[in-house]
Amino acid sequence: MAQPIEFYVEFSSPFAQIAAHLIEPVAAKHGRAVRWRPIWLAFVFKARYGAGFAQAPVKVDYILRDAQRFAALYGVPFKKPEVFPIDARIARRLFYRIERSDPAKAVAFVKAVLQAYWGEGREMRSVEQLAPIARALGISETDMLTAESDEAAKAAERRSCEDAIAAGCFGAPFFVVDGEPFWGADRIDHIDRWLAGRQAA
Amino acid sequence: MAQPIEFYVEFSSPFAQIAAHLIEPVAAKHGRAVRWRPIWLAFVFKARYGAGFAQAPVKVDYILRDAQRFAALYGVPFKKPEVFPIDARIARRLFYRIERSDPAKAVAFVKAVLQAYWGEGREMRSVEQLAPIARALGISETDMLTAESDEAAKAAERRSCEDAIAAGCFGAPFFVVDGEPFWGADRIDHIDRWLAGRQAA
Repeated sequence: MAQPIEFYVEFSSPFAQIAAHLIEPVAAKHGRAVRWRPIWLAFVFKARYGAGFAQAPVKVDYILRDAQRFAALYGVPFKKPEVFPIDARIARRLFYRIERSDPAKAVAFVKAVLQAYWGEGREMRSVEQLAPIARALGISETDMLTAESDEAAKAAERRSCEDAIAAGCFGAPFFVVDGEPFWGADRIDHIDRWLAGRQAA
Repeated sequence: MAQPIEFYVEFSSPFAQIAAHLIEPVAAKHGRAVRWRPIWLAFVFKARYGAGFAQAPVKVDYILRDAQRFAALYGVPFKKPEVFPIDARIARRLFYRIERSDPAKAVAFVKAVLQAYWGEGREMRSVEQLAPIARALGISETDMLTAESDEAAKAAERRSCEDAIAAGCFGAPFFVVDGEPFWGADRIDHIDRWLAGRQAA
């Protein structure tokens, strides 16, 4: 059985929305599942660069412009949110809490949060902001209210961050396919070609 | 008359070789010329980040692996050189010296240097290392020996670096198409789609 594609994703990155739309068709084409692993990218940056990591302001401006253009050129819904970046810890921990009992629902939740935040520009930080999306998926109020302090969810979140670092992650989205690392939504096309080459070999 | 695509290129970047192979077919498809402008990327980094700019070592490793894989997946000749990065000032200034009298030869020279350095892994730093390539293009010994201290070439080199910074450059390869900035060899596909969209509009 072929291994799933590991997909390390940070809610606060505009490229998360693009990658979320582009990775699944490529994975399906090659008979692969996708393992969604929300990470806290600041944790990764701190491990790689220490506390003082900062992008040049001109690069941050470019990144948003580039993501908006990338989404438009590839038909991905995109609306720049007013608040960026956000502290997405509640969404991450709710994902890991739900994943224990219902992995498919957890993935549906990530996609819905990304669509709301990056597809419609709605801030997705607090329980109140996340609640309509969670409710629509049948997630309970108890899950919503206890996710942030859920110790098992925090441990799973940390494990994903540490696994990402161990796999060579220094930015997100980050993919690992059969041990091979790919960084960026723009590398999904490379994953497609790379997997096609392995099948041919 | 449509404006040329500005192509800011750093000899020391592995993505220069990939971009050099991929940009011209896309430009030709849309009836655009390419204006090749070698830059000293360290000059740009210094303007953007100050003196202390350094990538995480794991990112430098990834970049070389990624470039090698990118080239293989897109059929671009690539052989990792032993010496990387190099001080490419002689190649840059020879380009700008030749460009004054023979722009086409100057472009042929950039391509040949990139092919030798990134396509065949041959160091391209000194006059001795550059000489076989320059001679094959009919470039004189005088040009080779005086390029490094050629004041007009240095001024042209500096102008390209400053124009790149003014256009928002923070990394290379960097393209400007009708005022729109694109960073990375992986954005050539976006340039293609973006120009197609403008023609359709």
